[in-house]
Amino acid sequence: MTAHSSLNPADLDKSGTRSQLGLPAMDVSLAFPQATPASVFPSCTSDYYHFDDLLTQEERDIRIKVRKCMEKEVAPIMARYWERAEFPFHVVPKLGTLRISGGTIKGYGCPGMSITGSAIATAEVARVDASCSTFILVHSSLAMLTIALCGSEQQKNRYLPSLAELSTVACWALTEPDYGSDASGLRTIATKVEGGWILEGQKRWIGNSTFADVLIIFARNTSTNQINGFIVKKDAPGLTASKIENKIGLRIVQNGDIIMKKVFVPDDDRLPGVNSFQDTNKVLAVSRVMVSWQPIGIAMGIYDICHRYLMERKQFGAPLAAFQINQQKLVQMLGNVQAMFLVGWRLCKLYEAGKMTPGHASLGKAWITKKARETAALGRELLGGNGILADFLVAKAFCDLEPIYTYEGTYEINSLVTGREVTGYAAFKPAASKPQRSRL
Amino acid sequence: MTAHSSLNPADLDKSGTRSQLGLPAMDVSLAFPQATPASVFPSCTSDYYHFDDLLTQEERDIRIKVRKCMEKEVAPIMARYWERAEFPFHVVPKLGTLRISGGTIKGYGCPGMSITGSAIATAEVARVDASCSTFILVHSSLAMLTIALCGSEQQKNRYLPSLAELSTVACWALTEPDYGSDASGLRTIATKVEGGWILEGQKRWIGNSTFADVLIIFARNTSTNQINGFIVKKDAPGLTASKIENKIGLRIVQNGDIIMKKVFVPDDDRLPGVNSFQDTNKVLAVSRVMVSWQPIGIAMGIYDICHRYLMERKQFGAPLAAFQINQQKLVQMLGNVQAMFLVGWRLCKLYEAGKMTPGHASLGKAWITKKARETAALGRELLGGNGILADFLVAKAFCDLEPIYTYEGTYEINSLVTGREVTGYAAFKPAASKPQRSRL
Amino acid sequence: MTAHSSLNPADLDKSGTRSQLGLPAMDVSLAFPQATPASVFPSCTSDYYHFDDLLTQEERDIRIKVRKCMEKEVAPIMARYWERAEFPFHVVPKLGTLRISGGTIKGYGCPGMSITGSAIATAEVARVDASCSTFILVHSSLAMLTIALCGSEQQKNRYLPSLAELSTVACWALTEPDYGSDASGLRTIATKVEGGWILEGQKRWIGNSTFADVLIIFARNTSTNQINGFIVKKDAPGLTASKIENKIGLRIVQNGDIIMKKVFVPDDDRLPGVNSFQDTNKVLAVSRVMVSWQPIGIAMGIYDICHRYLMERKQFGAPLAAFQINQQKLVQMLGNVQAMFLVGWRLCKLYEAGKMTPGHASLGKAWITKKARETAALGRELLGGNGILADFLVAKAFCDLEPIYTYEGTYEINSLVTGREVTGYAAFKPAASKPQRSRL
Amino acid sequence: MTAHSSLNPADLDKSGTRSQLGLPAMDVSLAFPQATPASVFPSCTSDYYHFDDLLTQEERDIRIKVRKCMEKEVAPIMARYWERAEFPFHVVPKLGTLRISGGTIKGYGCPGMSITGSAIATAEVARVDASCSTFILVHSSLAMLTIALCGSEQQKNRYLPSLAELSTVACWALTEPDYGSDASGLRTIATKVEGGWILEGQKRWIGNSTFADVLIIFARNTSTNQINGFIVKKDAPGLTASKIENKIGLRIVQNGDIIMKKVFVPDDDRLPGVNSFQDTNKVLAVSRVMVSWQPIGIAMGIYDICHRYLMERKQFGAPLAAFQINQQKLVQMLGNVQAMFLVGWRLCKLYEAGKMTPGHASLGKAWITKKARETAALGRELLGGNGILADFLVAKAFCDLEPIYTYEGTYEINSLVTGREVTGYAAFKPAASKPQRSRL
Repeated sequence: MTAHSSLNPADLDKSGTRSQLGLPAMDVSLAFPQATPASVFPSCTSDYYHFDDLLTQEERDIRIKVRKCMEKEVAPIMARYWERAEFPFHVVPKLGTLRISGGTIKGYGCPGMSITGSAIATAEVARVDASCSTFILVHSSLAMLTIALCGSEQQKNRYLPSLAELSTVACWALTEPDYGSDASGLRTIATKVEGGWILEGQKRWIGNSTFADVLIIFARNTSTNQINGFIVKKDAPGLTASKIENKIGLRIVQNGDIIMKKVFVPDDDRLPGVNSFQDTNKVLAVSRVMVSWQPIGIAMGIYDICHRYLMERKQFGAPLAAFQINQQKLVQMLGNVQAMFLVGWRLCKLYEAGKMTPGHASLGKAWITKKARETAALGRELLGGNGILADFLVAKAFCDLEPIYTYEGTYEINSLVTGREVTGYAAFKPAASKPQRSRL
Repeated sequence: MTAHSSLNPADLDKSGTRSQLGLPAMDVSLAFPQATPASVFPSCTSDYYHFDDLLTQEERDIRIKVRKCMEKEVAPIMARYWERAEFPFHVVPKLGTLRISGGTIKGYGCPGMSITGSAIATAEVARVDASCSTFILVHSSLAMLTIALCGSEQQKNRYLPSLAELSTVACWALTEPDYGSDASGLRTIATKVEGGWILEGQKRWIGNSTFADVLIIFARNTSTNQINGFIVKKDAPGLTASKIENKIGLRIVQNGDIIMKKVFVPDDDRLPGVNSFQDTNKVLAVSRVMVSWQPIGIAMGIYDICHRYLMERKQFGAPLAAFQINQQKLVQMLGNVQAMFLVGWRLCKLYEAGKMTPGHASLGKAWITKKARETAALGRELLGGNGILADFLVAKAFCDLEPIYTYEGTYEINSLVTGREVTGYAAFKPAASKPQRSRL
Repeated sequence: MTAHSSLNPADLDKSGTRSQLGLPAMDVSLAFPQATPASVFPSCTSDYYHFDDLLTQEERDIRIKVRKCMEKEVAPIMARYWERAEFPFHVVPKLGTLRISGGTIKGYGCPGMSITGSAIATAEVARVDASCSTFILVHSSLAMLTIALCGSEQQKNRYLPSLAELSTVACWALTEPDYGSDASGLRTIATKVEGGWILEGQKRWIGNSTFADVLIIFARNTSTNQINGFIVKKDAPGLTASKIENKIGLRIVQNGDIIMKKVFVPDDDRLPGVNSFQDTNKVLAVSRVMVSWQPIGIAMGIYDICHRYLMERKQFGAPLAAFQINQQKLVQMLGNVQAMFLVGWRLCKLYEAGKMTPGHASLGKAWITKKARETAALGRELLGGNGILADFLVAKAFCDLEPIYTYEGTYEINSLVTGREVTGYAAFKPAASKPQRSRL
Repeated sequence: MTAHSSLNPADLDKSGTRSQLGLPAMDVSLAFPQATPASVFPSCTSDYYHFDDLLTQEERDIRIKVRKCMEKEVAPIMARYWERAEFPFHVVPKLGTLRISGGTIKGYGCPGMSITGSAIATAEVARVDASCSTFILVHSSLAMLTIALCGSEQQKNRYLPSLAELSTVACWALTEPDYGSDASGLRTIATKVEGGWILEGQKRWIGNSTFADVLIIFARNTSTNQINGFIVKKDAPGLTASKIENKIGLRIVQNGDIIMKKVFVPDDDRLPGVNSFQDTNKVLAVSRVMVSWQPIGIAMGIYDICHRYLMERKQFGAPLAAFQINQQKLVQMLGNVQAMFLVGWRLCKLYEAGKMTPGHASLGKAWITKKARETAALGRELLGGNGILADFLVAKAFCDLEPIYTYEGTYEINSLVTGREVTGYAAFKPAASKPQRSRL
């Protein structure tokens, strides 16, 4: 902008110190000293109903260990990476030392935690940063678990150890541009050739894919017309992955568009346990439990920071914590968190008892994410203007919940999975696919 | 990530065409060809109840003119600027040619539109991009209007013409780090010196402030202890403004932290009409009407794009528009839009009839933003994964609504303004400001 | 209950005045003197945005006339009749003198009001008592309107004048036990015989049917398989109607189960204008507009009483009106009422301009009833314990809204009617009608 | 209604069988054969996450025993009693044989169940009929528990055994017309006289009071100005209780207005353990846990009947269970039920571990009732027209939840109790109790 000519420059300089607009951002603690930003993470006040009582000592230890690491290593840097939509590669080795990658997998260098322990770890990561938890989830509960459940002994030995220590990273590629909720219809094809397979097609939304060392790719076997699974390495000729930009949530996660043009995969890298779309379900059952624990952790983080903020921030001469409307919101959030935790916990116990059905997992994922979204919206309101800054966590968490609400089965698809289980009727498809004009 | 050593590089290159991960983003139309992104803006299907019938011919003309410009000039570039949190300076002259800056102000080069016309213009800008509408709102309905209502004849003649043509840009600085909802307590001070005033203090959240030519600054007169207003020029010594980063919404708007250290303002630039905090209310009354029209426009844009998306995008062999759940959401959104428009319209008519009270305006702002938020959340769900990409508008609009929900009086403050008007009781402050431990 | 034997009767009588439990109810004004019950109706504070400005003088006159009558004649007695689920026959002549029966019908002794005037009258009746408005709606906007739109000149002359003055009462019978939302599938049959028709079948939910003089009955013509309409008189042999009991809402309305066993209808009483199910649509279009005005009136009454109650009732030493949480609820309700009124008003204007489509009407009905339900729930909360007593209106209104949410097209059906109009896809039927067990 | 004179009576009788309108209600199974009413109670499908796993064998046995009795004895008659707002005295002995009265009290003929067992019993009663569960709750968890916790040994021996076997019935009178949420301010006075006390004052809303043998009355000691408690017998001279009519919910519960005019209470019947308002808190802590289990049971019943209804009822040629919108609602309800149960269960475990605070209990009560209300509203929608008939349970349950949402601390009061605990700030009272007119 240039100043309008009627302004007299002589007015503007008396001291010799010219003004400066458009300066780089001030540190938020200087610009807004009244309340502490999330780089100094608040203590955990959301565990109101003493959930530690429901955990084993080992699970409690995991909880503390992960919490400490996340608060120390990730909290101070996350707003900056989130803003720039970049991945903090330097954090990966620190996450690696937590020994949570591989989750419930036993052997092959994996931690072999209880599902509850793995869930708690997921929540503690997500409490501080949801993107980090998605990074691990894709890597561990989708890609590594697929190798563990559907891979050959040789594949497990070859890939799992380095993935477990996060010295290599994996991704998991099912979704395609035209097949999201309807993933079973996917079009990527795998054609048998001598010594291996040729993959052709396109994948979309694949988390970690822009830098993963190992890509699990699902494709339709051109002979059987069934879905098969393949392990593809990052430098496979014909494979390209480009970053998806302009995301409003999980901005630290690098989602990619993958294009495969005559990508050769040797026979050894076909997953012998994936012979139809149904075979992905045993993986998805576990991963949906894990995904359910992301919003639990996120909501805990939101509550924790809101609680501190309301105690610190004053308006009209009183801390925000003393206002009726604010207390009511805070308490509603607290109730949601208790319920979400308990639903997630029960899901783990059902799984451990061998009783968990797909409907159970889908209900958990759908119900918990819905409550998390409500909780985040309330938290956003409580923080006022600071509720739109990633520095105070809630704004970031509010946005991060949106992809989580939608991935691993949208709220609607998960509802209909449970609906089918409890009614016996599949209601995924509509009756009509052509416009009608008749009137009721 | 480096590949784990057990991987054999010989596996990875058979064709000589090495893979490439981490590539720059594909054009979204190539990556996702099934549905059209918002860079090609959809036609307006949200005006279901024929609102043009409620407008004069002049207002309808403004509507069309603004809509065309926004769809052509802003729609194609907004996702990119939003992602980078940058302001598209090159668009300003195009917005200038619309002749909407200055809104209802008559004379001084201003358009002198009806308030309904000005409101419709605001909505049409916001329908495509909320940040642009906030840019204009701050400039026109806050800063210019303050000069028009509280300035001297000389000030109006000097500043308004160039602001009206957007060859200069203004901002409006009331909020401070410690005084948001409680703005009337502000601490910036103005001390009388010979030939002018010295301003000292800090402002926060000030939109446009990182590049504005003219800054309207409110400060407490150290003699009277009342709030006064000043016109400060961008190059006033002692004035600095730094950008607030890490916002989740209205990312194109440049909000700033302003620091004033002994900033001299000549007597001619004190606004004679601002002698107490109450004097800001006549400005805020109009601006709250205008702010109410932002969410109306945003919600219209969201509906318009969702409607097109549901018709284009297919899953399970049918367009998303054919699914019961989707239709129910779309129709709820459509109902919200009709109601929001009508409430906004009625507010304009009350203003035009000289009957509008602060409670009326606050109710409109609060109620409309709440419905807009609900509408955006539904729209986000309808778009599934694409609902988290700014490319398809809804994700961006979903985020942009959050600051709007909070600025110009939060939802709660506006509710309590109306509540005070209809009950006679002011309920802003809590009874207690000290912790109590007694039990019920 | 008899007292346990260990109690010593000698303890219990010292004064000679024995206690008395199980006495008849005290007058609520004595039992709870702090706040005024709805028998003394509050003044109208819900018309915050000056809706009278949108009405003609004639419409304003109707409004005042109906309001006065309802407040004087119905308010004092409605709680008692509602409790006993009885119809106050003595009120009918007073409603008759209002000259609102027949609504928009011109001639034949009918008032020939504008649709806006008729709508305002509906709202003013419903503001005090929703059952009364349903009584008139069934009689006037369904039964009389069907005769006016589909009847012969002779039928109009014969039936409309006495119905217009409410010296006879009509009902309208479409719904059957197995055909509610799917009314077009109805099974009652009409077989042509010499001089007339024989009706056989069953109807359910028919308002006013236990005492109506004239019953409009829809049946399937056994020759054409199309729906036809008939005027049946109350003493037609073979016709029985029994009251539906145990309703939670609109308890004053007498809904009936009608059984027709060889009911003869003379040729003169077949409605010549009803030759297919589509012919009911022109009636339903108007009646849906009228039905939309019921929740508007109900919500106004709820707000009006809540406003007074909050000013009168004290807790913790302050009127309830001074509490933050209460103000926020009250203001949300007030916003809803303004929006509902405006949506209803716009619907009338679209109708008057000949532009109203079925989708417009369905959207209005669905959206307005949803908001009314939200408003009623908030009002119920505001009244605390008195929120569950019909004496304070809100409890009754809260219940009355439930059947209104569901009749004349449920919320879902109306949404799908609009959904079909805006998308072109009919989504009423599910794809599957048989259980499936396949998994996603 | 008399037929209009232009109708010719000769038209109306051909067969000699005159029609009959206004007949008594048909049995609902005949009037609506397509779906089974709640008199034949549906099997329990709401226990999706296998809650029996969380119970001891003894608790499971209680669950089955209570369920059977309620389904057999109460389900068939409840709609009739609810409609007439009458209490089914003949059911009391059957409830007595369940041995659940006295709940967790040990000795004195009481069952001494675990709190979880007592909670499960409450839920199973409420699943079929909420009024029955309120009857027992008032009698057992308020009145009996007050005697057990605050009574003398002699009082316990004298009163508890017959109350435990339900051969006598008790009520508990705290609330007054002017002191509801603010109960600690109560005005009933107790004046010491020779050999006893004279009670003067008025109580309101007291459940069971119209027929209770024993009334626990709280009054302000005129010497100490503290709250004391008294056991008053039903035939105490000067005591009257009249029924509160026109309730929309819990219509079977007989709430009363109690007036005490010089009611003499012998010294032996003063409760030695009640010496201030705080002493009621240990009772309220337990009773709030029990009250929380009412909405859990109610929501289970609602889900159970909705599930059966959707499978039985057809529209558009398919069972309602096959529609997308219906499945989504059903699944949301199912998720709510799982979460509510788990929150209630965790509350019991906290209590059993001696860790439960007032804030824990208040959060549970508030959060669970809110979810129950949401669940009931969804269920009401699913049942369409039959959703407004008590015969199909949901309508009745929908209404019954309203008083439960409000009693034992409204949603707001309970939120603020928890809010005070987690923030340290009491926010019950507003700052202002006088109208203000200043503007922001």
